[in-house]
Amino acid sequence: MKSNYAVIGLGLFGSSIVNTLLENDQEVLVIDKKEENVDRFRDVATEAIVADNQNELALQQLGIGNFDNVFVAIGTDLEASIMTTLICKDLGVKHLVCKAENARHAQVLEKLGADEIIQPERDMGQRVALHVMEPKILNDMKLKGELVVVEFELTNPKLFNQTLKELDLTNRYRVSVIALSHMDDQDAAIPNQSTVIKAGDVVTILGTRKDVKKFEDLATK
Amino acid sequence: MKSNYAVIGLGLFGSSIVNTLLENDQEVLVIDKKEENVDRFRDVATEAIVADNQNELALQQLGIGNFDNVFVAIGTDLEASIMTTLICKDLGVKHLVCKAENARHAQVLEKLGADEIIQPERDMGQRVALHVMEPKILNDMKLKGELVVVEFELTNPKLFNQTLKELDLTNRYRVSVIALSHMDDQDAAIPNQSTVIKAGDVVTILGTRKDVKKFEDLATK
Amino acid sequence: MKSNYAVIGLGLFGSSIVNTLLENDQEVLVIDKKEENVDRFRDVATEAIVADNQNELALQQLGIGNFDNVFVAIGTDLEASIMTTLICKDLGVKHLVCKAENARHAQVLEKLGADEIIQPERDMGQRVALHVMEPKILNDMKLKGELVVVEFELTNPKLFNQTLKELDLTNRYRVSVIALSHMDDQDAAIPNQSTVIKAGDVVTILGTRKDVKKFEDLATK
Amino acid sequence: MKSNYAVIGLGLFGSSIVNTLLENDQEVLVIDKKEENVDRFRDVATEAIVADNQNELALQQLGIGNFDNVFVAIGTDLEASIMTTLICKDLGVKHLVCKAENARHAQVLEKLGADEIIQPERDMGQRVALHVMEPKILNDMKLKGELVVVEFELTNPKLFNQTLKELDLTNRYRVSVIALSHMDDQDAAIPNQSTVIKAGDVVTILGTRKDVKKFEDLATK
Amino acid sequence: MKSNYAVIGLGLFGSSIVNTLLENDQEVLVIDKKEENVDRFRDVATEAIVADNQNELALQQLGIGNFDNVFVAIGTDLEASIMTTLICKDLGVKHLVCKAENARHAQVLEKLGADEIIQPERDMGQRVALHVMEPKILNDMKLKGELVVVEFELTNPKLFNQTLKELDLTNRYRVSVIALSHMDDQDAAIPNQSTVIKAGDVVTILGTRKDVKKFEDLATK
Amino acid sequence: MKSNYAVIGLGLFGSSIVNTLLENDQEVLVIDKKEENVDRFRDVATEAIVADNQNELALQQLGIGNFDNVFVAIGTDLEASIMTTLICKDLGVKHLVCKAENARHAQVLEKLGADEIIQPERDMGQRVALHVMEPKILNDMKLKGELVVVEFELTNPKLFNQTLKELDLTNRYRVSVIALSHMDDQDAAIPNQSTVIKAGDVVTILGTRKDVKKFEDLATK
Amino acid sequence: MKSNYAVIGLGLFGSSIVNTLLENDQEVLVIDKKEENVDRFRDVATEAIVADNQNELALQQLGIGNFDNVFVAIGTDLEASIMTTLICKDLGVKHLVCKAENARHAQVLEKLGADEIIQPERDMGQRVALHVMEPKILNDMKLKGELVVVEFELTNPKLFNQTLKELDLTNRYRVSVIALSHMDDQDAAIPNQSTVIKAGDVVTILGTRKDVKKFEDLATK
Amino acid sequence: MKSNYAVIGLGLFGSSIVNTLLENDQEVLVIDKKEENVDRFRDVATEAIVADNQNELALQQLGIGNFDNVFVAIGTDLEASIMTTLICKDLGVKHLVCKAENARHAQVLEKLGADEIIQPERDMGQRVALHVMEPKILNDMKLKGELVVVEFELTNPKLFNQTLKELDLTNRYRVSVIALSHMDDQDAAIPNQSTVIKAGDVVTILGTRKDVKKFEDLATK
Repeated sequence: MKSNYAVIGLGLFGSSIVNTLLENDQEVLVIDKKEENVDRFRDVATEAIVADNQNELALQQLGIGNFDNVFVAIGTDLEASIMTTLICKDLGVKHLVCKAENARHAQVLEKLGADEIIQPERDMGQRVALHVMEPKILNDMKLKGELVVVEFELTNPKLFNQTLKELDLTNRYRVSVIALSHMDDQDAAIPNQSTVIKAGDVVTILGTRKDVKKFEDLATK
Repeated sequence: MKSNYAVIGLGLFGSSIVNTLLENDQEVLVIDKKEENVDRFRDVATEAIVADNQNELALQQLGIGNFDNVFVAIGTDLEASIMTTLICKDLGVKHLVCKAENARHAQVLEKLGADEIIQPERDMGQRVALHVMEPKILNDMKLKGELVVVEFELTNPKLFNQTLKELDLTNRYRVSVIALSHMDDQDAAIPNQSTVIKAGDVVTILGTRKDVKKFEDLATK
Repeated sequence: MKSNYAVIGLGLFGSSIVNTLLENDQEVLVIDKKEENVDRFRDVATEAIVADNQNELALQQLGIGNFDNVFVAIGTDLEASIMTTLICKDLGVKHLVCKAENARHAQVLEKLGADEIIQPERDMGQRVALHVMEPKILNDMKLKGELVVVEFELTNPKLFNQTLKELDLTNRYRVSVIALSHMDDQDAAIPNQSTVIKAGDVVTILGTRKDVKKFEDLATK
Repeated sequence: MKSNYAVIGLGLFGSSIVNTLLENDQEVLVIDKKEENVDRFRDVATEAIVADNQNELALQQLGIGNFDNVFVAIGTDLEASIMTTLICKDLGVKHLVCKAENARHAQVLEKLGADEIIQPERDMGQRVALHVMEPKILNDMKLKGELVVVEFELTNPKLFNQTLKELDLTNRYRVSVIALSHMDDQDAAIPNQSTVIKAGDVVTILGTRKDVKKFEDLATK
Repeated sequence: MKSNYAVIGLGLFGSSIVNTLLENDQEVLVIDKKEENVDRFRDVATEAIVADNQNELALQQLGIGNFDNVFVAIGTDLEASIMTTLICKDLGVKHLVCKAENARHAQVLEKLGADEIIQPERDMGQRVALHVMEPKILNDMKLKGELVVVEFELTNPKLFNQTLKELDLTNRYRVSVIALSHMDDQDAAIPNQSTVIKAGDVVTILGTRKDVKKFEDLATK
Repeated sequence: MKSNYAVIGLGLFGSSIVNTLLENDQEVLVIDKKEENVDRFRDVATEAIVADNQNELALQQLGIGNFDNVFVAIGTDLEASIMTTLICKDLGVKHLVCKAENARHAQVLEKLGADEIIQPERDMGQRVALHVMEPKILNDMKLKGELVVVEFELTNPKLFNQTLKELDLTNRYRVSVIALSHMDDQDAAIPNQSTVIKAGDVVTILGTRKDVKKFEDLATK
Repeated sequence: MKSNYAVIGLGLFGSSIVNTLLENDQEVLVIDKKEENVDRFRDVATEAIVADNQNELALQQLGIGNFDNVFVAIGTDLEASIMTTLICKDLGVKHLVCKAENARHAQVLEKLGADEIIQPERDMGQRVALHVMEPKILNDMKLKGELVVVEFELTNPKLFNQTLKELDLTNRYRVSVIALSHMDDQDAAIPNQSTVIKAGDVVTILGTRKDVKKFEDLATK
Repeated sequence: MKSNYAVIGLGLFGSSIVNTLLENDQEVLVIDKKEENVDRFRDVATEAIVADNQNELALQQLGIGNFDNVFVAIGTDLEASIMTTLICKDLGVKHLVCKAENARHAQVLEKLGADEIIQPERDMGQRVALHVMEPKILNDMKLKGELVVVEFELTNPKLFNQTLKELDLTNRYRVSVIALSHMDDQDAAIPNQSTVIKAGDVVTILGTRKDVKKFEDLATK
């Protein structure tokens, strides 16, 4: 059974949410106070409504309170964001995801009962900066506590042409290779002990942040 | 040896990049045409300059061309974004990361030689929408080709109180558990065959997208 | 020992608060983001500061958190009102009195911890309307529950030239006259049973709303 | 017989007047030059008209001159306030209540014949400041001359568990208790000499300002 | 003894007043709230001050109240015009001449005590229209009641080459010629009965409006 | 036969011209680019048209070129004033009367062929200043050369209660009294030698500027 | 066979292009986002469309991609100019002529594939300045390399009344006279050796820049 | 002896004039009312002044009247353009070159005495349109009357590998080749009768418009 979605505010962030939901075949109600923003979704959204998002009556008549998930994707107008959040919670929205411009804004939204609060520009800025600082890291996932899963390319020739068994990474570095792809492979594969490392291999490593970092420093020399 | 960074444009996105770089002890030159934006970084950035980012002479005198990494984090003023990108490449910036507002903007920046192009609002909108559609997934990392690493909570009681050996996931679902944390653990740990699954366990699974999805549907019933 | 006061926002409402406090010999810190507003109080207020009221650092350095009473008298800029309220409570203000533009705004301020919330235009509108509807009522005070104290002019000639004893209001109307002034008196006085009612007397009556109303209708015929 | 009302200007102050009049079942004509302001009263007011309030012909055709009570609740646009006041008096309005922004504005309105002049922000600022300075006072009504009626909570334990006769307030403080409510009472009641004062009692006191103040200082220690 | 003059408001009208007063060797204080307007008179006016004309204190310190004649030449800002007029009268200006934009504005200024009220655009529009309708009339002065003095050119050949005695205008048209100039005269002269009318003569006629009009119609055929 | 008039620009000056022409029963075409300005004349003008006055085609279709008299009463928009003047002359207007803001503007209009150029604010400023400097002068008309006709009140008691014969003004001051009205007269009258001067008489004097001034100084002492 | 033209942007430059094309009987599609600009061409252009020139869909539906020649005559809005250029090239326009505001703008347009880039104000400024510096030069055309064709008036009397043979310019100055017109000629003519030079002759000279300059200096003394 | 130049208005057109004059080693005074525009020429122009170009006094003090050549390169502000032109002519400028926005503006400037009037956007639009319509024409110069000099590439193979003598253009087409350059030549050269035409040759042709056109049609087939 599909759950239902409403997205209030159709700027860059809200539009991207709508497009992603629609690509995943979800029913989406879109609301914005500017006609031109709503028009872009007239033919694709389940329902596209021009409404002042601070107009409580309008939101009530649209039955916002019955939606499982509502996104308040209102950008720079903090007053509108705050008032809409207040109204949505009052009308009974179950799961309310709100965009915040800054930490203080986030704090207000939290006190008003928002269930999830996103700061897209801040969050994306962090990701981009981290990525540029570590250009060799292709992917990085933090598990609970110390464990991380990290994907990078091996560039140290000393490692080439040895089997995983010979390299004995588990004992020497306390990390394990959980996936590996050769330069021309279409897919990554789960390696075994006899897999031979070659120039250009991309490996996915599991271990604590500290151990993975130490191995990565060696492997990407 | 530290590489050096310059960030042009100190809106929400640019500020977040600067903060992340500074938290990682990098040297950062920050530039914006508004004094108030620059002032916020006077005491923390390596250098904080008020300059019109379309002023070629100013950028030249700051030696932008010698920087390893320059971020053009200019938001809604497409003309400024485009002109600054052009000037930076002409001055010889090695790695130029640019923010784009939309697909067409990204296309222009690419033709002008930008090395990486980010659309923060669009990218973050996609992530948020996907996450809300799959609330049980805590973390998701796509490797090359079909393999994925996915972290989620096990909620199907049928799986509880069995060892991984008994569950035999590798054979029955073609997936493997590479990490696991019990409800009260501080850290995730690498499980072995005798590890017992309990209610509230969070597992990290490796397998193809299709296999992982099938197991996830069962495990989160 | 004097308690101390800070007033943030020096529009008509905030200015009136400051003036009243100063007339009562209180120490007052006044803050506004417009220089011209602050200048009007430079010579009279204890301290007069130009500061952006959303600037947390500025408010902290002024020691807002140590004030017993802070008034957030910010008018039409709801965002500023909300953010300032949030910051003041975070900084530890004991008693925070906030102006609200409308019911929703009041609701947000309440959730953020404002101790008292005033809507001056609404409250004054109510008073003026009530007064114009009942032009004979000079003063009206509601006690807990049903009792009211009401002051009005007696205009019904039937009541003139009788003593309060003769009128026997306590028994006949279940109200009592607690104060009375003749037309040319400078002061109202507490009457006794032998006081004689004359044309133009203004009386202060105690009783339930219903009883007072009934007597008032008779007495002002 | 109902008297009739017109309210010109539907800002916060004017709207509050209209709402109060409607709640008291009065007939109200509302006028504003902005359609959106008038629309909010279309279904509830007796008549709701969009008209330029400086348009003499329009006001004449609405028969403003025949209204008993007209409120000119025009806020910041002093020119509009002044011209409308002039026109209303010329058209013969009997009782004209006008909002003023400041003392000079009030003076102009008075010279043009306004019958009552209100400064809501100033008046409400005074009330709020006085109340915050004397937080124990719940209610305060000034009669002609020196007499006041004041309601406050008794907090001095020395007064507790005595009858009013024993306390003998009339002789010792020249004040009398005209009403009293115990902590859990729904209603205040008129006490008699044998009423016993208890912790948490709220009393309504009659006396001169000076005497009441002296007793209040003792009683709220 | 010179009287003294102050002109508040230095637009086209106010500037023209100042220039005319200065050309007649009067002492003039000029005041405007815009520096650029005041600067144009710095070198020529007796005193040139930048001041907000609604700033009562400023006007008081300039001693406006002691001036014999003050011109409030404030144009389109009716609020400023009204407030300045009020303040000037309160400060005791003897003779206050005010510019008004329209009839209602004039009415307000009158109620506030303005001694003379001018509507330059309206008054000049009337003059120009009248002049264009009667292009033969060179000058026209209305005395009390019906009498007028009118100057025009005689163009009807029937009148040429006769003496005033022969024309006998006093009896035949009830008008008299009080001045006359021949085409090449530098000055007009007072004619006598033997003066001969010639082609191109300009006459000044005295009589009632009706009689003068009748003669003019004949004389300008 | 009526001549025809067109007035372009319906500000204060243009409106006054239109009103004066209409009061004198003339046919008037009115043109303005703002609908609201034109609307005020819809019911009274012969024709009322909304048109951009720089739109040559529109003016041509209205047949502006065939009008005897056209007023270009465009105020502060010098460009519009200049272009409209140019177009009107090109289209063949016979007599073109233009408003100018300042001397330079007047110079441009003259070079473009305007037949009469009026500066209402400047001209009226001069009149008002002169009048206030000479408050006793009620009316003043300059004839060709030195002669003037001046109307003022006699206030010197030395002149009272004498006949004009006795006063012998023609010989003693080289001026003559051409009209005179007593304080309570409705009309001025032409005096004769036996007319007696009384307190409060208003006289109209003919003479050279110098002689009239000398007599006026004596007569108004 | 006519080729077809589209002009996007109908400012002064774009309008001039359209007018020139229409005068040469070409089919022209005109596009602008402002209705008023498009309206001026409704009756004369082959097709006149109001469309946002950044709206890709709109341009596609108009079949811009099939036009032989498209002019992007968008002035000061660089973003619009850049985006429109990008879209036009993507849609397959064969020959795209773009207006640029400055050198950097031109560089961007070139990278996006514009076939010709014009800077009208800069180019015309150069021409005007050169012409004013050399007022005797009537026409100047630069051929490939050093050769120029220059037209100017001969004013040095020493040259008058000699045949070209006598002057022997080819040998003495290394220039040749390719055309010549006498003062009263309607047309220039191709001279021969016996043509006699007269006062006021205008000659067209062929030679290297240096040689022509030397002769011109002599000939215009 | 250098003549001297002043350029008033430093937009794109004015800046281009200044740059061209400076490149030709002329003395240039530059004037604009915006500081930022003047600043760009501080180091290169002979004198760079910030002045309101309608300020007659300022222009007089700069001695504008003594300049040989003044350019009024004021763009969209027609009023400023007109007033500056008027003042410059009044101050005695010898040769005044003015920019006009449109035909009417040009007409006004002409009546005020401008010596040359340029419409850059219109003139350049014409050139560009003509050029695009005739892409083969590289250069085109019109002499007095019918003669033209035109440069284009020969593309018709029938003409290749023949001498000019063989082609006999003078007799067959009544045109002559005055210059010619082969594909790889740096310079054009003056051909003689034995010069051989080759593929890719660019020729400069002299003849009447009609004859040249006929030959061009053949030669570019």
